[in-house]
Amino acid sequence: MSLLPKINWKIIFQILGFLLIIEGFFMFLGIPFSLYYCGNRCFSLLYSGLITTVSGFAIWFSTRKASQQIGKREGYIIVSTTWIVISVFGTIPYLISGAIPNITDAFFETMSGFTTTGASILTDIESVPKGILFWRSVTHWIGGMGIIVLSVAILPLLGIGGMQLFVAEMPGITPDKLHPRITYTAKRLWFIYVLLTLAQTGFLMFGGMDLFDSLCHSFATMATGGFSTQNASVANYSPYIQYVIIVFMILAGTNFTLHYFALHGKFRAVWRNEEYRNYILFTFVFTIVITILLVIEGNTGDIEKTFRDAMFQIVSIVTTTGFVSSDYLLWPSHIWIFLFLLMFIGGSAGSTGGGIKVARQIILIKSSALEFKKMIHPRAVIPLRFNGKTVSPEIIHLVMSFFLLYLMTFFFGTFIMTFLGLDFESAVGATIATLGNIGPGIGDVGPVENYAWIPPSGKWFLSFLMLLGRLELFTVLIIFTPTFWRK
Amino acid sequence: MSLLPKINWKIIFQILGFLLIIEGFFMFLGIPFSLYYCGNRCFSLLYSGLITTVSGFAIWFSTRKASQQIGKREGYIIVSTTWIVISVFGTIPYLISGAIPNITDAFFETMSGFTTTGASILTDIESVPKGILFWRSVTHWIGGMGIIVLSVAILPLLGIGGMQLFVAEMPGITPDKLHPRITYTAKRLWFIYVLLTLAQTGFLMFGGMDLFDSLCHSFATMATGGFSTQNASVANYSPYIQYVIIVFMILAGTNFTLHYFALHGKFRAVWRNEEYRNYILFTFVFTIVITILLVIEGNTGDIEKTFRDAMFQIVSIVTTTGFVSSDYLLWPSHIWIFLFLLMFIGGSAGSTGGGIKVARQIILIKSSALEFKKMIHPRAVIPLRFNGKTVSPEIIHLVMSFFLLYLMTFFFGTFIMTFLGLDFESAVGATIATLGNIGPGIGDVGPVENYAWIPPSGKWFLSFLMLLGRLELFTVLIIFTPTFWRK
Repeated sequence: MSLLPKINWKIIFQILGFLLIIEGFFMFLGIPFSLYYCGNRCFSLLYSGLITTVSGFAIWFSTRKASQQIGKREGYIIVSTTWIVISVFGTIPYLISGAIPNITDAFFETMSGFTTTGASILTDIESVPKGILFWRSVTHWIGGMGIIVLSVAILPLLGIGGMQLFVAEMPGITPDKLHPRITYTAKRLWFIYVLLTLAQTGFLMFGGMDLFDSLCHSFATMATGGFSTQNASVANYSPYIQYVIIVFMILAGTNFTLHYFALHGKFRAVWRNEEYRNYILFTFVFTIVITILLVIEGNTGDIEKTFRDAMFQIVSIVTTTGFVSSDYLLWPSHIWIFLFLLMFIGGSAGSTGGGIKVARQIILIKSSALEFKKMIHPRAVIPLRFNGKTVSPEIIHLVMSFFLLYLMTFFFGTFIMTFLGLDFESAVGATIATLGNIGPGIGDVGPVENYAWIPPSGKWFLSFLMLLGRLELFTVLIIFTPTFWRK
Repeated sequence: MSLLPKINWKIIFQILGFLLIIEGFFMFLGIPFSLYYCGNRCFSLLYSGLITTVSGFAIWFSTRKASQQIGKREGYIIVSTTWIVISVFGTIPYLISGAIPNITDAFFETMSGFTTTGASILTDIESVPKGILFWRSVTHWIGGMGIIVLSVAILPLLGIGGMQLFVAEMPGITPDKLHPRITYTAKRLWFIYVLLTLAQTGFLMFGGMDLFDSLCHSFATMATGGFSTQNASVANYSPYIQYVIIVFMILAGTNFTLHYFALHGKFRAVWRNEEYRNYILFTFVFTIVITILLVIEGNTGDIEKTFRDAMFQIVSIVTTTGFVSSDYLLWPSHIWIFLFLLMFIGGSAGSTGGGIKVARQIILIKSSALEFKKMIHPRAVIPLRFNGKTVSPEIIHLVMSFFLLYLMTFFFGTFIMTFLGLDFESAVGATIATLGNIGPGIGDVGPVENYAWIPPSGKWFLSFLMLLGRLELFTVLIIFTPTFWRK
């Protein structure tokens, strides 16, 4: 026993209890829609919310005397278990309403929601009661809130994969005590998050979408989630609505501290941000290139629609949202394979987007370029600069390690999925689409398909990949190492 | 003009001329077989050899007064152009004999030979004149000789991808002048290379193979090349012959300095080598696992044959030889996908095997494990040890950079190949099979297929990938950077 490190379990449970109370309240949010569109399963959200809040209160109350000491170990455990515990409770509305009658599917759908992945096992979304669909979109929204705090305040503190370099620019953040820092950051960024969500809802309603669909799509957009309330995702909506979603996907895939800057009129600071500049630049360049290719290949005569489809799919994939406005697997194969490769880029650090992240890609490319310079000038000390500042070798190493681990997980995941019976393309697609928190992939989990047909073991494994990707790999995997449990 | 660095072109041409003379002599080697099995294209090897040696002499003679100064820049240019120039001249026998009438195919086949890849565009190998087939196998053998010297003596000196760590243990190698060092190493290692080739030839002949086929298969084995003289590769040979080839593939995929140790009775030093131990260990573990899986899946009742097929294919892929004794694409998909993932491992550093290399994989895995330890103990200095010695952060960085660049090249290659019209699986397969110098891949370039159907642009691109992979990426790519041409 004495070999084990002392872990403050009480505070872990206390925090989880607190988060469950909040989750329960979020479940109540959908009740108006349940009542308005009432079917015969009207009260499932009410019951679920009660179960969750009461459980939360019970856990919180029984651990109220916990020491407030939170070390690194507690931090890792809290972050990893949070997503699992709220996903477990998050299945209750699906199960009680019978919308998703089995625990595997319900857990997959909830984890997909909270990790803002957007991979779904629903084959007929439109037949699901509105209250439950609302809860489904809310899981995205909550997940997005969690990710913003996690990536801006917690992961940089834990030093995960170089995060301290990319998002440690929030003004007023000082490295003193954990609690006030997180509270300070959370308040400011959530304000922006809510503001953007409301703005998008307004723009969507202006385009004729009803309140329910507008809210659900805004939740899914701002969280870069991708759950739609329609079977056809956003393919059947008007060009205006698709453009609105494009714009807000781009905003959601942006570092939220930059929104904070912009809100304070510091537009220069925004444009000076290397990650942002590259993210915007290559999104547009790729859009133009794919549009030209699609036009040349003669798939359509309508250039505006081709441009919109190209941009929508590129933005949706790069930001890891996963909305679909056109079945890209019907495009020439080299084009959809290009989109598949884009799945490895990821959104901006400090955004709600998943994947490897643009900032890391920039560091990797710069590091490779430096390597060549060093080959010719072995004794020269050439610093790697990011946002005008020199990046330490340690951070470069962290970024490379993250990239390696990400690709190893991808290869391992692909193998596991083929082992579970998937063909090569679908295995590759399902792995990157869940690990990168994107949603739709290639093969039989493509943009117009879903994950219903995957065997149960595969659904649990993919749920794990979503969690891994969302929490930047290290945060979860460290708990499985012997070192973690040694004094 | 003064902005350009001074490059000693004369010495570059002198060395290329010298190597062409040698190449020409190697062409003559096949003449006895041309005469013995004489068809109507009996003299093509003689003519080719004359053209090549005379060209070589002319170049060498005109540059005989060159300064002997060889810097890093000259080194990179010599290494990269050597493979290209000898491949250009190596096409002459194919073209003159008419066995391969067009330059694209002939260049692909020759580059595939010299890079010891073994990817072929021949659809009916057995109809090719024996002399030409002999030349085809000799290209492997020369390529293997080149690689041994390159990886043991030249690349460590240039500091490519951590090579200095893996193979700098050759006794007697002191970092003084380039020329005597290379000569010293080359002599000793080539002696072992020739010895092993002759031993394998003997063992094969003992199993009833004729001299011609024995020599050709030994050339291809020792070079981890994979060109066979049979359409069915080695599938139709006896179990004895297949086992002989397995053993010699394993030997060819071993660091040649270890053979040197073994020859001097220092078996302990061999077994103490971490790369060797892991290479042997996981080859056997994988063989057992795949055998069990194949038996369980009920593909065959003959356990010995299943074991042999599993081992042959695993060894062939891990060593990057590319011989085939059974069409693995007919195995259950998760098994061939496992083999596909093995294509990313590569042989040992200092062997004739290509790919990423076992030593680099070990460093990468150890580095990842260290990362987790550092997360818990951020201030602890935990060294990474390889072969009992501490590895510097610089070397770890080089290894990671190599891995990154390798995977980026793989992704880029896949995209280019799909752009040229290949389907996803074939594009992925062709890219890794050529970049890793393996030969057969998956999809339409699988073990019983060939590269004849690939469009010409694709053949040129894949030839380039073979060169990139064979010369450890950096050696070739550096020449394309602006820094290289700046003072």
